[in-house]
Amino acid sequence: MTKDELKLLLRSFKKGSVSEEHLISRVRSLASESIGFATVDHHRALRQGFPEVILCQGKTPAQVAEISKRIVARHQPLLATRASKEHFLAVKKSVPKASYNSVARTISANTPKPSSKGKGTVLVVTAGTSDMPVAEEAAATVRMFGHSVELLCDVGVAGIHRLLSKSALLHQARVIIVVAGMEGALPSVVGGLVDVPVIAVPTSTGYGTSFQGIAALLAMLNSCASGITVVNIDNGFGAGFAACMMNR
Amino acid sequence: MTKDELKLLLRSFKKGSVSEEHLISRVRSLASESIGFATVDHHRALRQGFPEVILCQGKTPAQVAEISKRIVARHQPLLATRASKEHFLAVKKSVPKASYNSVARTISANTPKPSSKGKGTVLVVTAGTSDMPVAEEAAATVRMFGHSVELLCDVGVAGIHRLLSKSALLHQARVIIVVAGMEGALPSVVGGLVDVPVIAVPTSTGYGTSFQGIAALLAMLNSCASGITVVNIDNGFGAGFAACMMNR
Amino acid sequence: MTKDELKLLLRSFKKGSVSEEHLISRVRSLASESIGFATVDHHRALRQGFPEVILCQGKTPAQVAEISKRIVARHQPLLATRASKEHFLAVKKSVPKASYNSVARTISANTPKPSSKGKGTVLVVTAGTSDMPVAEEAAATVRMFGHSVELLCDVGVAGIHRLLSKSALLHQARVIIVVAGMEGALPSVVGGLVDVPVIAVPTSTGYGTSFQGIAALLAMLNSCASGITVVNIDNGFGAGFAACMMNR
Amino acid sequence: MTKDELKLLLRSFKKGSVSEEHLISRVRSLASESIGFATVDHHRALRQGFPEVILCQGKTPAQVAEISKRIVARHQPLLATRASKEHFLAVKKSVPKASYNSVARTISANTPKPSSKGKGTVLVVTAGTSDMPVAEEAAATVRMFGHSVELLCDVGVAGIHRLLSKSALLHQARVIIVVAGMEGALPSVVGGLVDVPVIAVPTSTGYGTSFQGIAALLAMLNSCASGITVVNIDNGFGAGFAACMMNR
Amino acid sequence: MTKDELKLLLRSFKKGSVSEEHLISRVRSLASESIGFATVDHHRALRQGFPEVILCQGKTPAQVAEISKRIVARHQPLLATRASKEHFLAVKKSVPKASYNSVARTISANTPKPSSKGKGTVLVVTAGTSDMPVAEEAAATVRMFGHSVELLCDVGVAGIHRLLSKSALLHQARVIIVVAGMEGALPSVVGGLVDVPVIAVPTSTGYGTSFQGIAALLAMLNSCASGITVVNIDNGFGAGFAACMMNR
Amino acid sequence: MTKDELKLLLRSFKKGSVSEEHLISRVRSLASESIGFATVDHHRALRQGFPEVILCQGKTPAQVAEISKRIVARHQPLLATRASKEHFLAVKKSVPKASYNSVARTISANTPKPSSKGKGTVLVVTAGTSDMPVAEEAAATVRMFGHSVELLCDVGVAGIHRLLSKSALLHQARVIIVVAGMEGALPSVVGGLVDVPVIAVPTSTGYGTSFQGIAALLAMLNSCASGITVVNIDNGFGAGFAACMMNR
Amino acid sequence: MTKDELKLLLRSFKKGSVSEEHLISRVRSLASESIGFATVDHHRALRQGFPEVILCQGKTPAQVAEISKRIVARHQPLLATRASKEHFLAVKKSVPKASYNSVARTISANTPKPSSKGKGTVLVVTAGTSDMPVAEEAAATVRMFGHSVELLCDVGVAGIHRLLSKSALLHQARVIIVVAGMEGALPSVVGGLVDVPVIAVPTSTGYGTSFQGIAALLAMLNSCASGITVVNIDNGFGAGFAACMMNR
Amino acid sequence: MTKDELKLLLRSFKKGSVSEEHLISRVRSLASESIGFATVDHHRALRQGFPEVILCQGKTPAQVAEISKRIVARHQPLLATRASKEHFLAVKKSVPKASYNSVARTISANTPKPSSKGKGTVLVVTAGTSDMPVAEEAAATVRMFGHSVELLCDVGVAGIHRLLSKSALLHQARVIIVVAGMEGALPSVVGGLVDVPVIAVPTSTGYGTSFQGIAALLAMLNSCASGITVVNIDNGFGAGFAACMMNR
Repeated sequence: MTKDELKLLLRSFKKGSVSEEHLISRVRSLASESIGFATVDHHRALRQGFPEVILCQGKTPAQVAEISKRIVARHQPLLATRASKEHFLAVKKSVPKASYNSVARTISANTPKPSSKGKGTVLVVTAGTSDMPVAEEAAATVRMFGHSVELLCDVGVAGIHRLLSKSALLHQARVIIVVAGMEGALPSVVGGLVDVPVIAVPTSTGYGTSFQGIAALLAMLNSCASGITVVNIDNGFGAGFAACMMNR
Repeated sequence: MTKDELKLLLRSFKKGSVSEEHLISRVRSLASESIGFATVDHHRALRQGFPEVILCQGKTPAQVAEISKRIVARHQPLLATRASKEHFLAVKKSVPKASYNSVARTISANTPKPSSKGKGTVLVVTAGTSDMPVAEEAAATVRMFGHSVELLCDVGVAGIHRLLSKSALLHQARVIIVVAGMEGALPSVVGGLVDVPVIAVPTSTGYGTSFQGIAALLAMLNSCASGITVVNIDNGFGAGFAACMMNR
Repeated sequence: MTKDELKLLLRSFKKGSVSEEHLISRVRSLASESIGFATVDHHRALRQGFPEVILCQGKTPAQVAEISKRIVARHQPLLATRASKEHFLAVKKSVPKASYNSVARTISANTPKPSSKGKGTVLVVTAGTSDMPVAEEAAATVRMFGHSVELLCDVGVAGIHRLLSKSALLHQARVIIVVAGMEGALPSVVGGLVDVPVIAVPTSTGYGTSFQGIAALLAMLNSCASGITVVNIDNGFGAGFAACMMNR
Repeated sequence: MTKDELKLLLRSFKKGSVSEEHLISRVRSLASESIGFATVDHHRALRQGFPEVILCQGKTPAQVAEISKRIVARHQPLLATRASKEHFLAVKKSVPKASYNSVARTISANTPKPSSKGKGTVLVVTAGTSDMPVAEEAAATVRMFGHSVELLCDVGVAGIHRLLSKSALLHQARVIIVVAGMEGALPSVVGGLVDVPVIAVPTSTGYGTSFQGIAALLAMLNSCASGITVVNIDNGFGAGFAACMMNR
Repeated sequence: MTKDELKLLLRSFKKGSVSEEHLISRVRSLASESIGFATVDHHRALRQGFPEVILCQGKTPAQVAEISKRIVARHQPLLATRASKEHFLAVKKSVPKASYNSVARTISANTPKPSSKGKGTVLVVTAGTSDMPVAEEAAATVRMFGHSVELLCDVGVAGIHRLLSKSALLHQARVIIVVAGMEGALPSVVGGLVDVPVIAVPTSTGYGTSFQGIAALLAMLNSCASGITVVNIDNGFGAGFAACMMNR
Repeated sequence: MTKDELKLLLRSFKKGSVSEEHLISRVRSLASESIGFATVDHHRALRQGFPEVILCQGKTPAQVAEISKRIVARHQPLLATRASKEHFLAVKKSVPKASYNSVARTISANTPKPSSKGKGTVLVVTAGTSDMPVAEEAAATVRMFGHSVELLCDVGVAGIHRLLSKSALLHQARVIIVVAGMEGALPSVVGGLVDVPVIAVPTSTGYGTSFQGIAALLAMLNSCASGITVVNIDNGFGAGFAACMMNR
Repeated sequence: MTKDELKLLLRSFKKGSVSEEHLISRVRSLASESIGFATVDHHRALRQGFPEVILCQGKTPAQVAEISKRIVARHQPLLATRASKEHFLAVKKSVPKASYNSVARTISANTPKPSSKGKGTVLVVTAGTSDMPVAEEAAATVRMFGHSVELLCDVGVAGIHRLLSKSALLHQARVIIVVAGMEGALPSVVGGLVDVPVIAVPTSTGYGTSFQGIAALLAMLNSCASGITVVNIDNGFGAGFAACMMNR
Repeated sequence: MTKDELKLLLRSFKKGSVSEEHLISRVRSLASESIGFATVDHHRALRQGFPEVILCQGKTPAQVAEISKRIVARHQPLLATRASKEHFLAVKKSVPKASYNSVARTISANTPKPSSKGKGTVLVVTAGTSDMPVAEEAAATVRMFGHSVELLCDVGVAGIHRLLSKSALLHQARVIIVVAGMEGALPSVVGGLVDVPVIAVPTSTGYGTSFQGIAALLAMLNSCASGITVVNIDNGFGAGFAACMMNR
């Protein structure tokens, strides 16, 4: 029930064309209805800052194409994550201006210009080159929400000077996303160097006892550097989303 | 080497009283020295905003008392976490004004007044009463850093209306810490209601397959609500620290 | 040994044509024989309410087709779960009226009309669209046993209002099956809203620390809502079967 | 807002003493309020059948005594689970008629007589004598809700005839709770003999690779007998609660 | 129903004092009864060779004393495993001739002389001195069943010559129980030297990644020596029992 | 060094053509040499009863064919396990009389007639049809060593009467191998019915929390039936080998 | 900044063509620059002994070919590990003299002659033939760094005499790498025979509870032989690298 | 048989007082005897460099005291690890000069002076103060074997400059032991800075997901710094022993 519909109902009641019993019944049932439109309001507000994002994994190319078409029809930014080449080809037919990032495995369109939405820059740091897909997914998410993003790659802790020589970059960021697999030590070192929020993303790179990212995840949860928070293994999108919330 | 010492050295070289070889040798060794004093500066800056916090676990009462005395001597806020009654009794002798929160198991003194340091309020939400110690540790950490904090307790998802009836509180917060054990579902529901950073803290409450907090941790890492980040099991301090970084 | 065969034996003994030793020997061996026909009786009774269901996983298309043919020859309802397209093609030759549900991956024929067998409706609720195959398997099982079933899909906890706006549906059900992957929080919220049995089914959707459904399983076993019971990961059939037992 | 308060408000609006804007504002805010009283209604209904149960674990004796006093003051049945001797002594002071079951570790008072609330009897079956505490907790819960309960103990699968000789008992039950530790095989055998709901409760008895009940839990989740549902390790209360829901 | 009772019944039927209907009814119900006495027969046979053994863990001293008294009253051998000093003191009062092995933590009485029951000797081999309690429990079990047993201790693989110099002992045994913690490698080496059954018993000795015996258990299950079978961690009793079955 | 070579050496020393120093050196090095030929003796003895078995997994078809050829050339029985169709085709060229069991995935030739080698029959029991490949591998191993073997299939515990009606078969066996996946309960029931060694083989059948056989393995290690021993998941060969050792 | 560049700068300052402020600014920024060239120096030194090694896993053939070309252009030894046939074909085009070891899955060129770089020989020992790929990777790494290496294969503990008869080889080595899967017992036996560093490498061979090498890893970490150190599962490269460090 | 005994035997044979048959029999039986004295020789050699070390865990104070007395009676160095105060008090009576290190929990006597046995210094580095007990156990072991040892403490990666400012110490060491709990990142950073063997020791410090050292262990096994080897959790002794082997 919209506000206007509610107004009409109340006026009918006042005029007597709607009984008290009927009105009470409608109002009591309004609980869920009003939650309904509160949700809508909330969602709309949310969408302005954070548009809908499509997780392609578990969806068919046709489903992703259909959702993409609707989003673009509303002139909203489009971001689809974990997209295969097949997903992209289907979307391309509905949304000709869509482009595909084969490293990040993202489809995007209508990406806004980096604007004043965020207070500063989100920096995405990776330990090794095999962490790039997750880092690119995080970066694509940040861009999609209109925030500025920079990348600093392949500065893993076994060559600590590579990281230290880039400390200026670290200190200019407002939020830092650190992406690392294997032993997952990089967030601890970065976290000890800066005083901004650090979001750690474990990746499933490595073999044997890396256990598809569990070793890195545990390292990050047990970081001796205070204030680090962690997201699921390979969850670049989640890290990017959280970074934008922190950067507003 | 300070800037003034460096000036003196260069002038001596220009005058000829220091050889080129000697100067090159000093400059090359500067690498670690310069890092040395950068560290000091950085640490000092850090300490102004975020004073040292003592993790009592694994330290003797005497050690904790000694460190506490030094912190208070520098007129800094004192916070000691995971403190036993024995730790507190030892600290009390050195720092008579220290107080003990037996729920949070924290010792504190010189806690600053909630000031304008943070942009808003940090809200700590718990699923059940057994999550209180971790929530109180988080709250004590936030207070210690001079930020405002509020608590909303016992609003677990099995009685979802308890949470929904407090949605005003949720929407006024700038950062939300959600503390939950057992199935750890509360952060997902809260994360779906708000558009500020949500930090999830799994607790070791429960029995059987709660596996001392692993069930809750996994639920939080797999949350279907975007933008939630997670800290180690029972790590109230880490959540409070991260919340302050996000709230600055 | 049937009752009539037993009568004959006893009469022969009374007449003397069967020795006491022989009779004692037959009676002692009766232990397993009588269990044998008790089993048959029991099985027959069971089949009337709950016809045989074929688990295709680990069976060849030819084996499934042969079993299907025999079931249909007895004019019984046919249900085969975890069936591939190949399984269906083989069955189709033996049982031309068989149909295939490619989402649920079930083959069925002779499905009874929803009848008065159950006291009420079984409601199957899912958290997300990727939980649909498991939900459909549960629904197909319920239908096969002649009970009424309804579905309520994509009402995960991160948008809690979607679920609350459907509370009428929840309150009309006699048994509720809740299917969820990722953090598996939905059964706790549903369980807190209703006073009928809730069966939770974890699904293997998600990635990283979802561990193919373990995260959801642990959440469900640790639910803070009383009275929830749980089945194996992706076990839609088991949930449907249990729901019918509860609904009789 | 009660129904009467709502009536007053509507009449004031009709009379003109309340503005349309004010009424709309109140009605929109009703969403959470109405959920509020819906919750209350729901809770009241729930409490009539299923009174509040206190989980003592993680609560002090004083807290448990206080809650017990309030429940008994409302003339409701009292059940407190996982209660230590200390918990009981504290309750005894507030509620002199409270009694303690030291095997089940439950405190109870005002337990209703087994009534016609349930359609039949709940049977609690155990594999061994060390499973008794969990079985007794389940039985106490069932009794507390006014349902009939019977116990059948020490009929583990290594002496299968002990169970088979009691098949009459199994066939008379309306719901069966099977409590077993170690290899947790009993629910599979029971589930294959009956056509009523079987709730399996793994217990933490055993040593070595029983892993405090995980071996039994996994066996139960993987049961080859259809229709078995499972609760958390040692969760006798949850099994009893679910059994009553199924028995209504 | 015993065989004699059955004879009486049949004769009454033949004489006419028992009706056919009554006899059929008794015979049909005999299914479980006959299983009952089959069980009894089986149990009696079993007890002759393998007397009842009491697992003290989870039983009170009074319970163990009561069961012990009954066993000894039947002039049977008494063995109680995982017995504490308290268990023994209680048993001692009922069974004055009972003795306690504080290493094996077993109580015994009426232990038979090593007889011709087994075809050969059971050899119990340990890797280290901390494996002795489990080895002694296995040996006590073997002795209790009237078989010959010998021990060979502290011949772990890190000093392989200690084992090789005792190869005569290995080759004289009919069944070998190998008890080892830590890396659990000894059964593989022993298994490669002999051609008799080898039962491997992992023990919970060690620290860190020994995971209370899991490391040893996994090693034993993955042994490259063919024909090794494994029992639960620390299950000396089970190994001794199985060895006697193999030695008959 | 053979005994004859040693004799020659000693005679040369006695004659003086070999120095004392040289002889001492040869004799000291004999330690490993003598172990060398002891090994050969031991191996030869072993091979007479237990011929070499080829594990194809991790070997190329060419390697398996080459080894097979050598074994058959020595007129020994040939058994190759975990063999693919490709392995068989390669072997077929070298050993035309080789045959392939596609269920057991074994290649065999020169299989001896069931002889008097074993004291009795080895019975292989399975819980379900999907356990057949492992059961067949066990049976093929037993046959290969010249022992008698019988199979009893699909007698899982959810239909306990199927097993009980075959108790005669169980009681005639000298050693029983029980193969089961899912909840792995069958060995406990069988172990409670017989007094011969029972070897439990967990299989990787099932899904979700069966964890590729871990659920069944844990159940078997925790069996409440005494005297059961366990082998690795899917290790039919190991069970067959151990059964033959026990049956000699 | 190279040393020569620094000299030039200092001379310009002395001559007055560079200001004191400018020089101080350059020197202060040198911190990271000097770390930069310290790293370079360090790296260069390192590369002389330990050239760069390419981990192909996670890199495209084109990327591996490009890096290979640059390494060979500097006349350095080339080693690429975990290389597929595709990786090799791409490298072959850029580096015609490159050769491929299909067992070790390594690409190499410019491999130095075994030189006096190491003090002795590195011995690589394997338990079974399926451990050869990892052993060959270790050997290729050792050769690449100019050290001598020997292999001793298929001497697993189930035939302990095979190992003992080769004790001379063991005692001649300066560092021993022991590669084993399944129960991983070989390092313990080898470690007990020698007094040089033993590096244990678990491999992912085996099935069922080998858990892709975890069983072997745990056995090695819990070895009762002192002084054994362990690397990641299947990490032949890491073991070879560590062996060379120990052999220098 | 000693070399001298062997000489006597051979001379008797040459003189004819010992028959050829007798000599052959003695020589053939020498296999195990020679292994016997080879073991003795080996052990003696080993003991000169590496004296026996007593693991107190699992031994009574009396046992430890008895072994200590024998070692000191042979004028050998004494080291007992994981010793409680009770162990020390018992040893003190037998060996008055024994001393106790309550941090390392070691008992020692006759510790040799740091000598020329090792080629260089062993450096023990710790991440935090709670890692000290394990570090001290490692250091005590190194000292006991006569090698030089130095400690560098509390240089964890969250304050990376603390470590970098001590790089001179790192570069002077011949072998480095790095002790760390929590996220276990320190070995990766140290390993990237040096070109000597680095032994990583995970410690059980931390809470929640540190899982008693598993998080640190996994990080170390997955280190991106080449050449790091790892020992069991809290195994300071093993690290010290291995370091001495590498330093010889």
